[in-house]
Amino acid sequence: MHVLIVQKFGGTSVADARRVNHVAKRIAHSRQLGNQIVVVLSAQGSTTDQLLEKAKEINPDASKRELDLLLATGEQQSIALMSMALHKLGCPAISLTGPQAGIHSTSAHGNARIKRIEPERITQELDKNNIVIVAGFQGMNRYGDITTLGRGGSDTSAVALAASLHADLCEIYTDVSGVYTADPRIVKNAQKLNEIRYDEMLELASLGAKVLATRSVELAKKYQVNLVVRNSMSMEEGTLVKEEAIVENTYVSGLALDKNVASVSVIGVRNKPGTAFKLFQTLAKAKISVDIILQSIGRDKTKDISFTVAKQDLQQAVQVLQAGKDSLGFESLSYDDSIVKLSVVGAGMASNPGVASMLFEALYNGGINIMMISTSEIKISVLIDARDADNAANAVHSRFFSQPVGAQQSQA
Amino acid sequence: MHVLIVQKFGGTSVADARRVNHVAKRIAHSRQLGNQIVVVLSAQGSTTDQLLEKAKEINPDASKRELDLLLATGEQQSIALMSMALHKLGCPAISLTGPQAGIHSTSAHGNARIKRIEPERITQELDKNNIVIVAGFQGMNRYGDITTLGRGGSDTSAVALAASLHADLCEIYTDVSGVYTADPRIVKNAQKLNEIRYDEMLELASLGAKVLATRSVELAKKYQVNLVVRNSMSMEEGTLVKEEAIVENTYVSGLALDKNVASVSVIGVRNKPGTAFKLFQTLAKAKISVDIILQSIGRDKTKDISFTVAKQDLQQAVQVLQAGKDSLGFESLSYDDSIVKLSVVGAGMASNPGVASMLFEALYNGGINIMMISTSEIKISVLIDARDADNAANAVHSRFFSQPVGAQQSQA
Repeated sequence: MHVLIVQKFGGTSVADARRVNHVAKRIAHSRQLGNQIVVVLSAQGSTTDQLLEKAKEINPDASKRELDLLLATGEQQSIALMSMALHKLGCPAISLTGPQAGIHSTSAHGNARIKRIEPERITQELDKNNIVIVAGFQGMNRYGDITTLGRGGSDTSAVALAASLHADLCEIYTDVSGVYTADPRIVKNAQKLNEIRYDEMLELASLGAKVLATRSVELAKKYQVNLVVRNSMSMEEGTLVKEEAIVENTYVSGLALDKNVASVSVIGVRNKPGTAFKLFQTLAKAKISVDIILQSIGRDKTKDISFTVAKQDLQQAVQVLQAGKDSLGFESLSYDDSIVKLSVVGAGMASNPGVASMLFEALYNGGINIMMISTSEIKISVLIDARDADNAANAVHSRFFSQPVGAQQSQA
Repeated sequence: MHVLIVQKFGGTSVADARRVNHVAKRIAHSRQLGNQIVVVLSAQGSTTDQLLEKAKEINPDASKRELDLLLATGEQQSIALMSMALHKLGCPAISLTGPQAGIHSTSAHGNARIKRIEPERITQELDKNNIVIVAGFQGMNRYGDITTLGRGGSDTSAVALAASLHADLCEIYTDVSGVYTADPRIVKNAQKLNEIRYDEMLELASLGAKVLATRSVELAKKYQVNLVVRNSMSMEEGTLVKEEAIVENTYVSGLALDKNVASVSVIGVRNKPGTAFKLFQTLAKAKISVDIILQSIGRDKTKDISFTVAKQDLQQAVQVLQAGKDSLGFESLSYDDSIVKLSVVGAGMASNPGVASMLFEALYNGGINIMMISTSEIKISVLIDARDADNAANAVHSRFFSQPVGAQQSQA
């Protein structure tokens, strides 16, 4: 009985011939252990950026369909080169584009969603004893046109293939050794987690931890794909993402810092029903996603509403609100893009009411002011001044992870 | 009633953004005249060489299937960029890879032949008023794998599409203004032909004139595709290649100089039946194509056999003959790779027996020695010393084309 593993390597891992050869050796090693292997690759290094630059030179407002056809060549080159590198090592291998691999997607060029996978060609090639190398980030719509899957697309390709092939494991190789309790570049004592639950990973991913694309974790949870995040440059064990992680004594798994946040405050909104609805409808029509929302207790006839958006949406949010000032009826607008969102995530949080107070205490001791607060079942987020970000992350991390992961005491 | 034109542009014509924009304007102009347009493109400039270099760095003996997948990205990039350039000019356009365009080929990776074209997608897009831009040089085999068509592949793609779509015209854009009576870089007075017959073009192409790939002319003849060779950088009329060219008074259409020739002489072969057969069987087994063959009149017990091969096959030809020396039974071998083949081609030649003597006279007057002679219905080729090549070409050209093309007198 073979173990079937899907392995995904990012663009940095295959940036040049040397690294392609290194990754090929790694894949060959997995195969020698008796596994069946499906590999998913991104485009080499900066290839995608170079292609975007070429397109921009010709047409800064290029059609998304044509951009997809152009960008898909990056992954196509990676897979062909990897197949050649494996052949040189004596490993039978074959490369398949997204369409050839049977990856069917919606028609939303530039941000397509995988609709279904018809994996017959892949299974045929596995049966022929081949390592199958699939171009990540791409699929085919119902017209036979090539689509790309948008941000995090290759992670998503890998997880979707693992689900479709009923793979035993989906390994996401990256330049870090796994999922950490905090970003190791900011928090010196950040610890690698051996296991983490899908829900927690999802919160961490959507809260700014860049190790896995949110979409791929959602898909892994939906199809119960065992996901491992590990380092392509070391043989270290990574972090296993699964339904029930064995971290019994932990109520906080990690913290995330999202720097891509800006806040908008709408001052002096009329204090009557429907004003909030109209405000957020205006933003929704402009396709602006709103995250944390805070509404002041109404004083007399007016109240204030604050909310956060992604930094790149700030300008447009302010514009559409200003344009609708008369019908929305408010006094003034203010905004701030020098803020960050710090979040602590943990499945054990709901049954440990002390977590919030531990967080606030840590921030208070560090002299850090909290601007907004948002909570869910398994996370608490606070907005703080961007200048406080690193201090806050270290202070909070020390408070929750003073002892090795898994040995936290469950009484807060 | 629309006129449907297939236009093919080579790699030099689309080498950078400036040239892509130039070609886009040219295509847009054809469309504004009311034509339906299908465009076939090669990869930009040196893209194919760069990709081959990348492959070589990883595996010098790369699989042809994987090489095809890699190389096909070059044309895919060209077509996407051209489509973007046309959009910028306000022209509706869509790009299609070879497989998307329905180009089905054999499985001979690196040198596949087009088997059939299923042009439904192309005609749908033409009906939607789109300019359709197709990746040349590529197709898809019956497994859905991408193939490349080998040397001259993009010309062949264009002619095959024109045949399949019943196009009114297939325009091959290149860096010369048409088919000339001789290579204008060598023969100063070389004249552009307005029309030429398929058979003559075929002889010229296979005899070293590089303006059109032989395969594409064969295909054009088979399906009676009207082919025009013209310059992508000027609006000059090109040369029309068709079944019956209106060149009534001409018996020679052009001359070609092939520098990729070497001769081998096998001295002292036994003068008995079967020796020539064994000799050429030996070469055929080594997949070496032989062109002109000359056999001396047998003297006593031995004779000499000379033949020509492509320069790159010379070394191997000598090796296999030497290896079989005992069984073949000859005295010695000699070879010469400092020779060229000069040919004059013309459909009117068969009915004008004086052509050969005019050729020999011109060479004699130029003091040029003839080493071997070969004739067919519509051409005469002579082998001469490479040092005489340019002189000979000019001398012969002057003899046949002293008057403007079409005004030659028909009595030799």
